[in-house]
Amino acid sequence: MDFRSDNVVGAAPDILQAVVDANQGTATSYGNDPYSERVEARLSEIFEKPVRAFAVTTGTAANALALSALVPNYGAILCHDEAHIHLDECGAPELFSGGAKVVPLAGASGKIAIDALRAMLDQTLTGDPHRVQPAALSITQATEAGTCYRPTEVAALAEIAHGRKMKVHMDGARFANAVAHLGVAPAEITWKVGVDVLSFGATKNGALGAEAVVFFDTALAEDFVIRRKRGGQMVSKMRFVSAQLEAYLKGDRWLALARHANGMATRLAQGLQRLPQAALVSPVEGNEVFVRLPQGVIAGLKAAGFNFHEWTDGAPGTIRLVTAFNTEPADVDALVATATKLAAAAA
Amino acid sequence: MDFRSDNVVGAAPDILQAVVDANQGTATSYGNDPYSERVEARLSEIFEKPVRAFAVTTGTAANALALSALVPNYGAILCHDEAHIHLDECGAPELFSGGAKVVPLAGASGKIAIDALRAMLDQTLTGDPHRVQPAALSITQATEAGTCYRPTEVAALAEIAHGRKMKVHMDGARFANAVAHLGVAPAEITWKVGVDVLSFGATKNGALGAEAVVFFDTALAEDFVIRRKRGGQMVSKMRFVSAQLEAYLKGDRWLALARHANGMATRLAQGLQRLPQAALVSPVEGNEVFVRLPQGVIAGLKAAGFNFHEWTDGAPGTIRLVTAFNTEPADVDALVATATKLAAAAA
Amino acid sequence: MDFRSDNVVGAAPDILQAVVDANQGTATSYGNDPYSERVEARLSEIFEKPVRAFAVTTGTAANALALSALVPNYGAILCHDEAHIHLDECGAPELFSGGAKVVPLAGASGKIAIDALRAMLDQTLTGDPHRVQPAALSITQATEAGTCYRPTEVAALAEIAHGRKMKVHMDGARFANAVAHLGVAPAEITWKVGVDVLSFGATKNGALGAEAVVFFDTALAEDFVIRRKRGGQMVSKMRFVSAQLEAYLKGDRWLALARHANGMATRLAQGLQRLPQAALVSPVEGNEVFVRLPQGVIAGLKAAGFNFHEWTDGAPGTIRLVTAFNTEPADVDALVATATKLAAAAA
Amino acid sequence: MDFRSDNVVGAAPDILQAVVDANQGTATSYGNDPYSERVEARLSEIFEKPVRAFAVTTGTAANALALSALVPNYGAILCHDEAHIHLDECGAPELFSGGAKVVPLAGASGKIAIDALRAMLDQTLTGDPHRVQPAALSITQATEAGTCYRPTEVAALAEIAHGRKMKVHMDGARFANAVAHLGVAPAEITWKVGVDVLSFGATKNGALGAEAVVFFDTALAEDFVIRRKRGGQMVSKMRFVSAQLEAYLKGDRWLALARHANGMATRLAQGLQRLPQAALVSPVEGNEVFVRLPQGVIAGLKAAGFNFHEWTDGAPGTIRLVTAFNTEPADVDALVATATKLAAAAA
Repeated sequence: MDFRSDNVVGAAPDILQAVVDANQGTATSYGNDPYSERVEARLSEIFEKPVRAFAVTTGTAANALALSALVPNYGAILCHDEAHIHLDECGAPELFSGGAKVVPLAGASGKIAIDALRAMLDQTLTGDPHRVQPAALSITQATEAGTCYRPTEVAALAEIAHGRKMKVHMDGARFANAVAHLGVAPAEITWKVGVDVLSFGATKNGALGAEAVVFFDTALAEDFVIRRKRGGQMVSKMRFVSAQLEAYLKGDRWLALARHANGMATRLAQGLQRLPQAALVSPVEGNEVFVRLPQGVIAGLKAAGFNFHEWTDGAPGTIRLVTAFNTEPADVDALVATATKLAAAAA
Repeated sequence: MDFRSDNVVGAAPDILQAVVDANQGTATSYGNDPYSERVEARLSEIFEKPVRAFAVTTGTAANALALSALVPNYGAILCHDEAHIHLDECGAPELFSGGAKVVPLAGASGKIAIDALRAMLDQTLTGDPHRVQPAALSITQATEAGTCYRPTEVAALAEIAHGRKMKVHMDGARFANAVAHLGVAPAEITWKVGVDVLSFGATKNGALGAEAVVFFDTALAEDFVIRRKRGGQMVSKMRFVSAQLEAYLKGDRWLALARHANGMATRLAQGLQRLPQAALVSPVEGNEVFVRLPQGVIAGLKAAGFNFHEWTDGAPGTIRLVTAFNTEPADVDALVATATKLAAAAA
Repeated sequence: MDFRSDNVVGAAPDILQAVVDANQGTATSYGNDPYSERVEARLSEIFEKPVRAFAVTTGTAANALALSALVPNYGAILCHDEAHIHLDECGAPELFSGGAKVVPLAGASGKIAIDALRAMLDQTLTGDPHRVQPAALSITQATEAGTCYRPTEVAALAEIAHGRKMKVHMDGARFANAVAHLGVAPAEITWKVGVDVLSFGATKNGALGAEAVVFFDTALAEDFVIRRKRGGQMVSKMRFVSAQLEAYLKGDRWLALARHANGMATRLAQGLQRLPQAALVSPVEGNEVFVRLPQGVIAGLKAAGFNFHEWTDGAPGTIRLVTAFNTEPADVDALVATATKLAAAAA
Repeated sequence: MDFRSDNVVGAAPDILQAVVDANQGTATSYGNDPYSERVEARLSEIFEKPVRAFAVTTGTAANALALSALVPNYGAILCHDEAHIHLDECGAPELFSGGAKVVPLAGASGKIAIDALRAMLDQTLTGDPHRVQPAALSITQATEAGTCYRPTEVAALAEIAHGRKMKVHMDGARFANAVAHLGVAPAEITWKVGVDVLSFGATKNGALGAEAVVFFDTALAEDFVIRRKRGGQMVSKMRFVSAQLEAYLKGDRWLALARHANGMATRLAQGLQRLPQAALVSPVEGNEVFVRLPQGVIAGLKAAGFNFHEWTDGAPGTIRLVTAFNTEPADVDALVATATKLAAAAA
């Protein structure tokens, strides 16, 4: 029973089937295929606005390429200090942007604090040649702490950023989980509250390997097809990537998959919360549960065959449990039951 | 009937099936899965030497990442003046290497002329700070002209390069076609004749989207897992990429696929050569046919529904016809028959 | 009376004269001149070890080029969170290194706290491809807070860094001031305590525009002449830069200039400390005084014609006063007298 | 007697004196000084147009920074195949631009052939993501062959470039020599014929180390102060650089210096042309003479103490003789006399 990550699981059967079905006849290569066109059209529908959308194969590439379209090489990219682009992408944004600086900002529960953003900007005069120039704000939704920004929270941050002529990027590796949790229209949490570009994730939520960079400000997309090629992401047989996205976006399939994962996380959290020694680190608003447990319980769970990550960036005794589109309720219940037994024995 | 490229076709059924079969249970993400391990082991077998192998999703990424491991940012990458890395990858090697310079060298039939290599090196003193430092030689096999370097040809170029402490890269987007044509052991055309790193292509020859960077000089691979991540190519559900490579490399499947494509190209070339107005631009030694035809024949073929590229980098009236692992003999014969009729009518 | 910075003043007369004297006959360009050779020899003498030394025209270039020789593009450069390379060089280290990441560490009085360094390293496993790899530690001596690391402090940091196979860089824009304050041999505060490369400043201490990158680990210098050219710092008439360094290093001229500047700062600090409302922010160990004063006193000093910077990176009411090799005692005394009067009036 | 280069000589006495005179009082650092302001105003006068001008310390930095303001990192910089930016700056344009590609074009006598430019552009569709995008044309004036473009020649190239929305850069390391030779107003050979940005050289023509990047299209200069800092060229005591430029530009001093150098080159060429075995490689239109001589004459000149470069990029037996603002007629005559004697003896 594997709760390590939503990328240790495989693909949703219908998404895999779409790949199989795409293996018919010839198709123009490098993204000029009908699958890719339909994905862009469908995303325009979902976001209630004509968007430009570009498929890529990894979330790191989606983020790094999107940011490279927003900032000059002397620009600063502001983000939360636990953001994936800051801690977990090995400098990909720096590579693709030609050396822009990723500047971390503090904030509780994985969310950038308004005051931290303001303080950073106050310290940096526009045009001061000594300092890198704030050029983009990157917001992670759902956050690295498993929480979700409310539309008003995004709006407040984006307004400040736009006031400094910065662009706003959203890292949506778990965007579906956020929309499912918030119960808002996708537009309400993106361009309507100031997001210019979205890394729209699908891999963690059931695709084999497919993400889309979605431009709400389509002027920013002008040279993106070039950046994508230069970045090694203009897949030759792109139909096999776009077909995944097409299946993912069919009806509300993407939200249904996320709702399941979220539901499993909630079930996990509710079960663990009943243990007196357990403490949730942040509210569970997506498919991730960060919880502090006694070391004996953690060790016992591992011994019992449950697989998960101890969270070294957090306080000692913190573990992360991630659910996915295909997590079985029985597995969740088994983990809770085992933890309960272990906790009782330790008490 | 589509002869535009070997990337407009789909995937070989067994490779697609391997992707389907890989959708079982959970697997460690980011390349630490058993599929990836088996691919490395199988490539070590095929090349008769322990290699390090890293799966990526595009040929551009394979080349650019491989080269970035071989050259400092002030290095020069020497290649043929029609090489993909020079003309068709939109500066990806420059991006991934931090601005190394790709220096084109002349040579007939897509092959670097020994004298061109020598002349370039003679012009550039080692350590002269005014000039970028020759650091890598990149050889395309099969070449962009559809020909193949003989082992002795690779050896001669590699020896000069190594004499200047340069590393030798092989762009093997169509490596299988070359090995199939030459009938040599893979080792004989790579590390035994001086190749340090190979971009081992699979996509054009039946995969959905999978390439491997294969290090024969494994010391050069030391930080490659980091470069791959930073370059946006550390696929989270890597098993779906590695499973393609595993199926591709099973037995001699990869060579069988290439043999078919090569055979179809030969059949095409033999058919067209019979036309008095047709002239092959280079010998057909892989799955590409470059042929000069009268404009009327070209127009007539297009009108008859044959799809292919006019080759703007070549002489006027040159077209490129590419066959693939699944090209039907009947389609080849139809093209030849139509061209024959058109040529006869024009004569 | 201008206390804004040690770069608003001109040049020491003997250094200027050396430039004038160098204007004789022809000299090989691009650094292959006898002046440059003599500078390297003299620095080897001063540091009691054969060093490699390379003149450049700015401190930013010295730091950025030096660091680019120490780190791969996926490397992390660790430094104090007030370091010039982090806050005040507009991303030059990122540009010259191809996108390495500058990671700020906390610490009192401008010095990196050992625990902050350890914590950062503990968080980052060597070889973990998700994270940039700690590759260099940069220590500023004298610090941005006007303090000086003791040899044991440098040794402790350097030992940890070397234990992780990192290289150690010292930003010595005010190196002379530190050596003058500490009263140690230059070797004792550099390579003997683990410094691999030093940005040896001269501009702030009396030169027109000249800095040297000094390699104690000469193997690291192997390609530096190339990096310097590529970085736009291989001055064609280099003799005019090297002549400055030669005059600067003659006898203990460089230390005498620094001793004067330091003495003036001490005189300033001692004078201001007598005011009950004044509070030094850090010990004065070089030529910079950071002091908190009542806003009325600050305004009064400005009105009286004293020129200096309010320190926006510090607490409100903090000003920075910088002395130089040519600061007049009378100007120092005038400032102290005026501040004393203003403070008394306000009390 | 040293004819190696115009950078082996020292500085003009009045320019050196200006540096000495600038050593008075304090001046705001980093380019915000009155010297720098006056230089910009004077250049606006000289070019009959309000320009933005930025002092830097080397020609390589001037070119690389100027180009970095004109091209995206996926851009191509088109230039002559002997251009300094292509052959002799060790990839500085690639570094500062984040990996743009320098694309060499053929042409006689150091000038880009119109047809070579057209052919290159015809081969590269705007927006084709496979190919780097032509973004800047760089014209060297005077050329690397010692010749000068006529205004109509610049206009013809610039018109084609602007027709593709490219920017036009002029590498004017020897701009004064060209203006002196052509006898045109500086405006006539720059912005009036389509030049957007000029690297305005002074070092080779009498300065110690000072160049200016001059923007005729001032919108392109918007972020240049930032690029200059990031590039390590925002000199702290900038007055010492700008003072050189101010003296250089006083009256027509810059042209007078160039006229002398040009006159000496003409005198050299006229003397050598009388030898039956001598052949000028290109017309002498500046301060450089490229001439083919018998090996015996070359060896004899060296033995007689004349210092110059054999030109390895040219045909065997080609030497380059460079004159400067301070070349003595007697030295020129001595070289001619010696060569004449050697040639006669050999005949």
